[in-house]
Amino acid sequence: MTEFVAPLRSMRFVLHEVFEANRHWSAMPALKERVDTETANAILEEGAQLVTREMAPLNLSGDRQGALFQDGQVTTPSGFKEAFATLAQGGWIGLGGNPDLGGVGMPKMLCILFEEMMYSANNAFALYPGLTSGACLAIDTHASAELKRTYLPNMYAGHWSGSMCLTESHCGTDLGLIRTRAQDRLDGTWTVTGNKIFITAGEHDLAGNIVHLVLAKTAGAPEGVRGLSLFLVPKFWVNQDGSLGDANGVSCASIEDKMGIKASATCTMNFDGARGYLIGQLHQGLAAMFTMMNYERLSIGLQGVGSSQRSYQNAVAYARSRLQGRAADSTGTKDAAPIIVHPDVRRMLMNIKATTEAGRAFSTYVALQLDQARYAEDAAVRQRASGLATLLTPVAKAFCTDLGLENCIQGQQVLGGHGYIRESGQEQLVRDVRIAQIYEGTNGIQALDLMGRKIVANGGALFELFAEEVEAFANDHDNGSKGPFGERLADVLTQLRELTLWVIKQSAADPRETGAASCDYLNAFGYVAYAYMWARMAKTASAALARDESDHLFYKEKVSTAQYYFKRVLPRFEYHVQATRAGAAPLFELDAEQF
Amino acid sequence: MTEFVAPLRSMRFVLHEVFEANRHWSAMPALKERVDTETANAILEEGAQLVTREMAPLNLSGDRQGALFQDGQVTTPSGFKEAFATLAQGGWIGLGGNPDLGGVGMPKMLCILFEEMMYSANNAFALYPGLTSGACLAIDTHASAELKRTYLPNMYAGHWSGSMCLTESHCGTDLGLIRTRAQDRLDGTWTVTGNKIFITAGEHDLAGNIVHLVLAKTAGAPEGVRGLSLFLVPKFWVNQDGSLGDANGVSCASIEDKMGIKASATCTMNFDGARGYLIGQLHQGLAAMFTMMNYERLSIGLQGVGSSQRSYQNAVAYARSRLQGRAADSTGTKDAAPIIVHPDVRRMLMNIKATTEAGRAFSTYVALQLDQARYAEDAAVRQRASGLATLLTPVAKAFCTDLGLENCIQGQQVLGGHGYIRESGQEQLVRDVRIAQIYEGTNGIQALDLMGRKIVANGGALFELFAEEVEAFANDHDNGSKGPFGERLADVLTQLRELTLWVIKQSAADPRETGAASCDYLNAFGYVAYAYMWARMAKTASAALARDESDHLFYKEKVSTAQYYFKRVLPRFEYHVQATRAGAAPLFELDAEQF
Repeated sequence: MTEFVAPLRSMRFVLHEVFEANRHWSAMPALKERVDTETANAILEEGAQLVTREMAPLNLSGDRQGALFQDGQVTTPSGFKEAFATLAQGGWIGLGGNPDLGGVGMPKMLCILFEEMMYSANNAFALYPGLTSGACLAIDTHASAELKRTYLPNMYAGHWSGSMCLTESHCGTDLGLIRTRAQDRLDGTWTVTGNKIFITAGEHDLAGNIVHLVLAKTAGAPEGVRGLSLFLVPKFWVNQDGSLGDANGVSCASIEDKMGIKASATCTMNFDGARGYLIGQLHQGLAAMFTMMNYERLSIGLQGVGSSQRSYQNAVAYARSRLQGRAADSTGTKDAAPIIVHPDVRRMLMNIKATTEAGRAFSTYVALQLDQARYAEDAAVRQRASGLATLLTPVAKAFCTDLGLENCIQGQQVLGGHGYIRESGQEQLVRDVRIAQIYEGTNGIQALDLMGRKIVANGGALFELFAEEVEAFANDHDNGSKGPFGERLADVLTQLRELTLWVIKQSAADPRETGAASCDYLNAFGYVAYAYMWARMAKTASAALARDESDHLFYKEKVSTAQYYFKRVLPRFEYHVQATRAGAAPLFELDAEQF
Repeated sequence: MTEFVAPLRSMRFVLHEVFEANRHWSAMPALKERVDTETANAILEEGAQLVTREMAPLNLSGDRQGALFQDGQVTTPSGFKEAFATLAQGGWIGLGGNPDLGGVGMPKMLCILFEEMMYSANNAFALYPGLTSGACLAIDTHASAELKRTYLPNMYAGHWSGSMCLTESHCGTDLGLIRTRAQDRLDGTWTVTGNKIFITAGEHDLAGNIVHLVLAKTAGAPEGVRGLSLFLVPKFWVNQDGSLGDANGVSCASIEDKMGIKASATCTMNFDGARGYLIGQLHQGLAAMFTMMNYERLSIGLQGVGSSQRSYQNAVAYARSRLQGRAADSTGTKDAAPIIVHPDVRRMLMNIKATTEAGRAFSTYVALQLDQARYAEDAAVRQRASGLATLLTPVAKAFCTDLGLENCIQGQQVLGGHGYIRESGQEQLVRDVRIAQIYEGTNGIQALDLMGRKIVANGGALFELFAEEVEAFANDHDNGSKGPFGERLADVLTQLRELTLWVIKQSAADPRETGAASCDYLNAFGYVAYAYMWARMAKTASAALARDESDHLFYKEKVSTAQYYFKRVLPRFEYHVQATRAGAAPLFELDAEQF
């Protein structure tokens, strides 16, 4: 595998030029003092060095060694401990964390670009700090001041790590079926008993303590998800003075042998009368967990983008060095040419490039909404941004990871037989990124979340927040993207709006229509969102070219890639519209027994 | 993983009812005496028992153990030797082989259905007999009578196996770069020297001898592929009396550690002054090898279909047993329902089902052309069928395997997290089927073969052979498929024909247009071909329903699945048309250095 090179120029372009991060940051009192363009660039630069030096070299060896389980203990592959310590010491686990308790307080827009790099470098490794950051966010948002003081500084510093315990063997999506129980000890703590499966980083040797956030039911709670509460259950009990006490009743029974992310321990966890604390309100566990889940869901979208980026670099390097055949328009020469001259190889590279960069831009755009929802002064701005983040998070998670898999497979195809061999590292990318479509809510569940909760349930109100913004951009005659991009963007937006109204109407008549539409609708939405991203990137790049800025080639490349996206990728949109409009009937022609 | 159940009813439907195999067989003198409906069904039945009993149980264990290499020897996983012997003893390796030399002489239409079952049961295992059958075909078609007499009976009987040695480390697609040399010993044999990589079944412990078919260059041969000749190089020299003599100068240097098909040995082979025989004419090696390659290419398409079928069965079984959530239109009940009630799960199952059954029908249709090309009495029929087989083979290879991967991934998605765990077997299907898009010519190369050699090079003449048949069917007002299917089929065919002419015209102006169009064109073609298959299956099923045949539910299910295909899958066709029509320009906006 080629050495990973962080796409810093592309990141700076998206962050500063397209979304003008500093303009937003300087308008938010909490961020104004903390971050500016220069700080952000320094952080990206340092982050890039860190992941390249510490994490990327452990990717292949981590896959080969895998996490090992013996007698309840999990050993991570060679080098993981040292790399995790280096990461923690640099403050990277707390990069977005509460600055009053040891976090760095950086905006989400910046954090996600670092996350993307981590996934490019080492998918399996990235999950350890990722889960910890997510757990910190849930604790920071919902736990008592005392718990926050006790736990957050240690977690930001990487002394302790976090996990998220939802799934049980009989329930993943349908959390209302959870059987894990919590009993009030009437001393401010609870006793948690039950079994959880598929717990990422549930047990490992990277940190001195592991802080489990566990969904459980309490006696007399309402049925289903409304009866769930969230508990903080440490592996080792933490004494009043902050020192570690006895082992709690938490144990790892086994880890899974998986298709990929083999260095990430996926644990079966037994809670056997373990002590813990209630986090947030009783019976509000799902809402509290969703704080973490939404954070994780955007992060998992970045797993798709980061893996795509790595795939792109591998494929380009191979396409430049592999000599095979001659260019179709070559004359005379009999020497084999690098395969990058071949149109179909170009097509694969351009597909990966166009959707990777759009994914980076879209994730950054969603992160901007999260930052505004949290930090904007104006309540109306906060509310609008929060609505957009709510709407777009499932799209970012599912669409970026669906394309992530496609892009890793296309990169593998560029490498031909060499891409199927383990030593190339490319097949590992395919195996690793595949999980991103499954965990943190399968992409089918994301689609249902989008279609049901985020669109149908509010009659399309959140959709209009987004649609009006895109429409205004597409119809802005003064902006440089007017012309082919603006017209086509307005066209697909109109189609998407009509489709949205159609699904809402259909769903009123037959509730199955929501689910029948969901996946194709999410894809249709995603291709429009990426078109919006490319139109914005093209506008920014065109303006820079008009100003005759240096880095001419870079900006031209953006305009060319936008053209590629509109001509050769965006037509997928119409397919998903048609498939959505086919409705539920074709899905229920067969009885369940006829399959 | 669920136990594999061969889809015999579906196979009989396609073979006998849709394509009326027996009508064709009884019109071909060579086949008339050998096979009829009853014989064919008995063979399918017995084949199903064989693969279920002998091969399927070795699938997971074969993946875990993998082929092992030590000191030049390859050990296949436990049970492979016994299963191969059972297969060989039953005559299955020679199922389609020359009956005068120990083969069974069954038509391709029947052989491919058995191949599909083998791939469903065990992808890695299936390659051992598959390569041997392919090598036998090349020997039977091109070798001298003496070589045929010496080698074929032993290979059909599985005492000896076959391999196909093309790829070298610096050349896969571009075989003109081959460096392996053959020198005439002037005693009727040649000395072959060179190194080959990625040789499937190049070395193993299943047979007493391995017969390598090796592409090499001779002194003074023309440059490029026109200078290649094909040689038969046995692992052990075969004496005049047919007994095995000394080890030949052939050795296995290593085997690859791969993403999947781990039980199949992918070998680096060294030919070090090995003795061999010329097969076919000097400098005609590529043509001779293509006899084998075309056979293999249709076979590899079946790998896609067989893997899809297995994925479908796993996904349906899981969807029926996994309880999660409630049906959208359920009232009252609070119990979790099997996930097959959910529209999006239905969508995934229907996608797999509709494209798997179309793939089976299409492969059978292509096999019918191969049978007619070989056995039909009328020269005009032979010629037309040969043209269709030539045209459709790259479509079958690429389209069936692209959908094969998609279907294995969709099946995995139905299983959620459980599909990512190795013990489910589903993730292995994804890893195993992935190779099918790469080997025997990548799917990009298949697309270029279709677009360049099979379409543009003859101005669309072969295309019209197919188009006229589809058009006649679509416009036949008497046939039961007229109505929505017929109209839509005529519509997509018209679009495909216009697209074909457009690409031919574009390519005349700029040779890069052929490659730029190739992959999307092949997909567009594939969706039309599958539409033709579903229209034919629906016609057959509708007629059976009209006759009020028993098995009413089966025929209704076919009509419903056809509807599903036309409504929710076929819209992909228009996307690929649009992408094709975008042409080469967007692919070459960036210079190679700008990637």
